[in-house]
Amino acid sequence: MDRIAGDGTLTAQVMAVIRQRVANRSLTAGAKLPSIRALAASLRVSTSTVVEAYERLVGEGLIQSRPGSGFYVASQTAPLALSEIGPKLDREIDPFWVSRQSLDAGDGDLKPGCGWLPPAWFPEDGLRRALRSLSRADSAALSDYGTPLGLAPLRQLIGRRLAEKGVEAPPDQILLTDSGTQSIDLLCRFLVEPGDVVLVDDPCYFNFQALLKAHRVVIVSVPYTPNGPDIEAFAQVCAERRPRLYITNSAIHNPTGATLSPVIAHRVLKLAEQFALTIIEDDIFADFEALPAPRLAAFDGLERVIQIGSFSKTLSASARCGFIATRPDWIEGLIDLKIATTFGGGRLNAELTLAVLRDGGYRKHLEALRLRLSRARLEVGAKLRTLGLVPWIEPQAGMFLWCRLPEGIDAADVARAALGHGIVLAPGNAFSVAQSAGNYLRFNVSQCQDERVFTVLEAAIGMAARPDKARSASPS
Amino acid sequence: MDRIAGDGTLTAQVMAVIRQRVANRSLTAGAKLPSIRALAASLRVSTSTVVEAYERLVGEGLIQSRPGSGFYVASQTAPLALSEIGPKLDREIDPFWVSRQSLDAGDGDLKPGCGWLPPAWFPEDGLRRALRSLSRADSAALSDYGTPLGLAPLRQLIGRRLAEKGVEAPPDQILLTDSGTQSIDLLCRFLVEPGDVVLVDDPCYFNFQALLKAHRVVIVSVPYTPNGPDIEAFAQVCAERRPRLYITNSAIHNPTGATLSPVIAHRVLKLAEQFALTIIEDDIFADFEALPAPRLAAFDGLERVIQIGSFSKTLSASARCGFIATRPDWIEGLIDLKIATTFGGGRLNAELTLAVLRDGGYRKHLEALRLRLSRARLEVGAKLRTLGLVPWIEPQAGMFLWCRLPEGIDAADVARAALGHGIVLAPGNAFSVAQSAGNYLRFNVSQCQDERVFTVLEAAIGMAARPDKARSASPS
Repeated sequence: MDRIAGDGTLTAQVMAVIRQRVANRSLTAGAKLPSIRALAASLRVSTSTVVEAYERLVGEGLIQSRPGSGFYVASQTAPLALSEIGPKLDREIDPFWVSRQSLDAGDGDLKPGCGWLPPAWFPEDGLRRALRSLSRADSAALSDYGTPLGLAPLRQLIGRRLAEKGVEAPPDQILLTDSGTQSIDLLCRFLVEPGDVVLVDDPCYFNFQALLKAHRVVIVSVPYTPNGPDIEAFAQVCAERRPRLYITNSAIHNPTGATLSPVIAHRVLKLAEQFALTIIEDDIFADFEALPAPRLAAFDGLERVIQIGSFSKTLSASARCGFIATRPDWIEGLIDLKIATTFGGGRLNAELTLAVLRDGGYRKHLEALRLRLSRARLEVGAKLRTLGLVPWIEPQAGMFLWCRLPEGIDAADVARAALGHGIVLAPGNAFSVAQSAGNYLRFNVSQCQDERVFTVLEAAIGMAARPDKARSASPS
Repeated sequence: MDRIAGDGTLTAQVMAVIRQRVANRSLTAGAKLPSIRALAASLRVSTSTVVEAYERLVGEGLIQSRPGSGFYVASQTAPLALSEIGPKLDREIDPFWVSRQSLDAGDGDLKPGCGWLPPAWFPEDGLRRALRSLSRADSAALSDYGTPLGLAPLRQLIGRRLAEKGVEAPPDQILLTDSGTQSIDLLCRFLVEPGDVVLVDDPCYFNFQALLKAHRVVIVSVPYTPNGPDIEAFAQVCAERRPRLYITNSAIHNPTGATLSPVIAHRVLKLAEQFALTIIEDDIFADFEALPAPRLAAFDGLERVIQIGSFSKTLSASARCGFIATRPDWIEGLIDLKIATTFGGGRLNAELTLAVLRDGGYRKHLEALRLRLSRARLEVGAKLRTLGLVPWIEPQAGMFLWCRLPEGIDAADVARAALGHGIVLAPGNAFSVAQSAGNYLRFNVSQCQDERVFTVLEAAIGMAARPDKARSASPS
């Protein structure tokens, strides 16, 4: 238990015990503290020591005295700090490491670890045309809220695009959102309770973990293979942990670039049926594909699979627009939640997205982009190999290469050393619930067009091989 | 308890009991059902009746059998349905009534009950200029994610605008969001736990209730007076219920149009300090004011008051952009939550908002808008009085008139009758946690420019005075 020991006055030690219980949430806001007598007995100190400790904590504002009732944790002291939930992963490398570094990067920084394309790889001309066209749109498009489901012609167009992948979703089963992340967040609000078990891949997109922590669920993972989740492990986790939800990418898996095979897709769906598992299929990389890979939502017919997507990866990450395609009886409840938590959706972004999608230039842009990414995967893969980094697979499409570092090199050390030189890398364990990817890095080939990426990487790997130097190179 | 009665077979009645417990969440997803023996005893039916009922419910997928362990509620069956949480308010008039009707209204419908301006009252020319200017912006503005805090020049500008109201907030204490609603949602995620008590005004903006229900908190309310909350009731609720959070509008209160007085503001803050209460001050109507009213955040210096706002009411509800101004030590935690739940913010909307705010035309637009609203409040108020509707106060600014109906007339009946004629009204109890506003309607004077509003209203009041006819006129 909390027996006190070590140096410091007894009063300071009692204070530390209480602070610790508040920090680790065993005492939450408003909770009653142990009585003075009880705490004195359990810590084997005098009651006057506990009285003094409690009084000082009242002075600090951490706890409050309610005369005649006892002491309570002050209600302002326990905001939800995601960074404090669960164990600290791999020192500073937590699920926010990549996103915070990438989103905060300065203009001169390079971001081979980030998860999106450079501005010049987006359909810039189409976006400019769409903005000019919007400047002449009717006034409601410029100033009115969106409808609860969102812009009808965009939902129709999304429905046709889903049909090309074999997913049948009429427009009234499609709900527009402000982003793919918001789609998953709404669905988690709708589907899971705090304490529910949610299954993800190992490795998986780091923000799944961050988002799920905000929902206070229990996260479990199964290893991902080049063809989808390890189906034996998947079956075992279903049987033993009874997950409520499974969140995955199936077209192009993040971070590995792997593609789900039809046989694994079929087995996953059989297990989902057997164990009443709902699946969120995050199809955010769909437009990178030349040939559509199998989709869980296509096999399942949106019975227990929900497909979500957005346009942030291929159209614009500035004008954000996402969607949820799901079974008809879940739409009304999702609309209520969307209104409650964001009120009207972002109509202007939906109008802009529609204008770009309707522009013939977008399909041509995608064809050129796929070719450009294919070349970049080859070129960057070759350069990484010369530095001893080995891609786990050769992805069929997309921007990611998931690469193993030479034996004994810690990706976190490499990432910290590179950050000191203005290079944001994506260390493997940021993607791994099981912390099994400590010698992997994810590379975004579109963000590796500057030779400095490779010179700094080479130096950082060299430093990481001598851990004493890697530490001193860290900017912290 | 659940003694079964009425018609139907015994098996069907047992099934109905279980369905009811799942629907009202006394049995939630994954919960174990009563044993067959226990349920049979409590319902006074045979065990074979319960066995058959359970087996049929398994067949329906509502519950699952785990051999050797018992029966459990299937995990997919209990999505969070906001409409089912808590008592059904005043038949169909729940906190979603106004928002769903208003957002779903057809082009020919009139919306005197909605909470926003008609498109023609927005700064249309400024928006068009801003879109043309954005079409020439650098490519990062068009396609890249926003930074974690959001567009720096917009945060600086918001900081200067806050200073005009006496609220000191440097740009690094301002976090951009996608809307005022999202601001409150993020703060609730940060500050409250399920089961915490949250205080609102009676009446208050209906979506506060919807949002708080999504956070599963206990909502309590205190009556609002023309000068702010009833301070005696406020003190009593603080002492008895220990609310964690108080959410209010202080500049122009929704739905009443009332203005907080300095003396009430001071007392609220003293009570907040005494009871460790955090306050979210929703200042979304700030730009309607000619002279700034007292702000809690100004007196408090952002210690325990958080100010949130957006541009949806006066600049554009299509290009959504909001903000949170708060104490410096809460910013990092809020950023983590923002990234986890929405990833990058909507940069394009922030760029557009900045362009409109910088345009000299926006201040002129606001001056003209305030004058137009003042005239409309007078004209619409006079017309409503001729129909027997009496404004509770004469608001100093804004678009709302909170009006009492003639004695004995139920606002819900009037609203249903008017809806049958394509007029969306805002019945008082949609705004009232305590259900104390059954004979009030909120009018948006900017949406009352068509005479049809008043002719339908007069007829609807006439029908509501004869409840048998009001029912048959309802479109349901």
